[in-house]
Amino acid sequence: MSTPTVIYGRPVTTEGIPNVYAGAEVIPWATPDPGIDNLGITSVDTFAVPGMGEYAVEFEGFVRVVRSTPTSREWASAEVYTNLIEMKMVGDSPELGRITVSLNPECLSAGQIRTPFDPYAGEGPSAKACRMAVGAVFALPKLGLKLVNKEPIILTIDDVRQIPPAGAPGKGQIYRMLPLNDIEHLDDAPVAYVTSLRFNMGGYLTEEQIGSM
Amino acid sequence: MSTPTVIYGRPVTTEGIPNVYAGAEVIPWATPDPGIDNLGITSVDTFAVPGMGEYAVEFEGFVRVVRSTPTSREWASAEVYTNLIEMKMVGDSPELGRITVSLNPECLSAGQIRTPFDPYAGEGPSAKACRMAVGAVFALPKLGLKLVNKEPIILTIDDVRQIPPAGAPGKGQIYRMLPLNDIEHLDDAPVAYVTSLRFNMGGYLTEEQIGSM
Repeated sequence: MSTPTVIYGRPVTTEGIPNVYAGAEVIPWATPDPGIDNLGITSVDTFAVPGMGEYAVEFEGFVRVVRSTPTSREWASAEVYTNLIEMKMVGDSPELGRITVSLNPECLSAGQIRTPFDPYAGEGPSAKACRMAVGAVFALPKLGLKLVNKEPIILTIDDVRQIPPAGAPGKGQIYRMLPLNDIEHLDDAPVAYVTSLRFNMGGYLTEEQIGSM
Repeated sequence: MSTPTVIYGRPVTTEGIPNVYAGAEVIPWATPDPGIDNLGITSVDTFAVPGMGEYAVEFEGFVRVVRSTPTSREWASAEVYTNLIEMKMVGDSPELGRITVSLNPECLSAGQIRTPFDPYAGEGPSAKACRMAVGAVFALPKLGLKLVNKEPIILTIDDVRQIPPAGAPGKGQIYRMLPLNDIEHLDDAPVAYVTSLRFNMGGYLTEEQIGSM
């Protein structure tokens, strides 16, 4: 396994950290011990391909996220750091073919959960904000392409009332367009853009479910 | 000069590209020859420092941006790639002291100007969108800190009717918080966050103005 050269956030160790699978209890407003969360995820990503068109694609898959020891046992002041250590999402598009999204091993995809500086009306009392900066590989075998993002995709979940925020909707904070580059020609013009990304964190999966995806 | 290890976009050569200073004419809806634009810039950045507070700081300074040869002479289809090759912005805060923002030499700060996939009402006909992903160093000598962002700051300008978009307002696309890390302790928790960033691109400066800043 290669060492990432692009570090998007705080590294979190996986050493000695247990996997957490389906059946684990999630307690609202509590700061859990560190763990590797094995969670389902679905998303709808929209891709603009210059000269071809714009396509919304539904994805389904899983993520594995390592969580740090919380900086405090008290919910309100606790911060938790996260690294996305594995991801596989698959979607099918009539035009683009099958698309498989995985992590870019060149990047450390990292994030955190903390109390926001700008709580908004409608957020629960003491709700937290979750964010993750992700470097991904989009494999499109039909087009013979593997695409990567050179700017991280910022995935956010608001109104977080439990850790992990399983079951919560989230958004990729993409302003108009996020360039995707051919992994074989990184210095050339982007060949596609992500123009929108909405996701839902699922619940815990079993080890067997993860293995079969 | 060190070679950047984190490449946020398409590299643009500076070799043989002339500097453009005050007095140069900017023609709307036209695709100019490549150049290095020497432009004024002002911004208001808001910083949240956990344990201290949140502070809005006014900055003033300059940027030097190299522009590529347009991919087409026709405005509507042309794409222009940009690299931010120099930046100096200075602001003063009663609480944080003087803050000087410059480029992080570890990063290639890069962007592009192209026709957006999602034109909105109010944008001029055939207006373009400008975006730039920036790695910066925030020097705060009063606090004895140099801070860097590990996720790029995405600066955007909409409704672009001329290249460069001198005189246009822009925004840093920051969702709630963008972490800043102590350059000496990159793997530790962030020590501050940018929570908002609004800027205005100024016009061309003279070589003397750039030299005196």
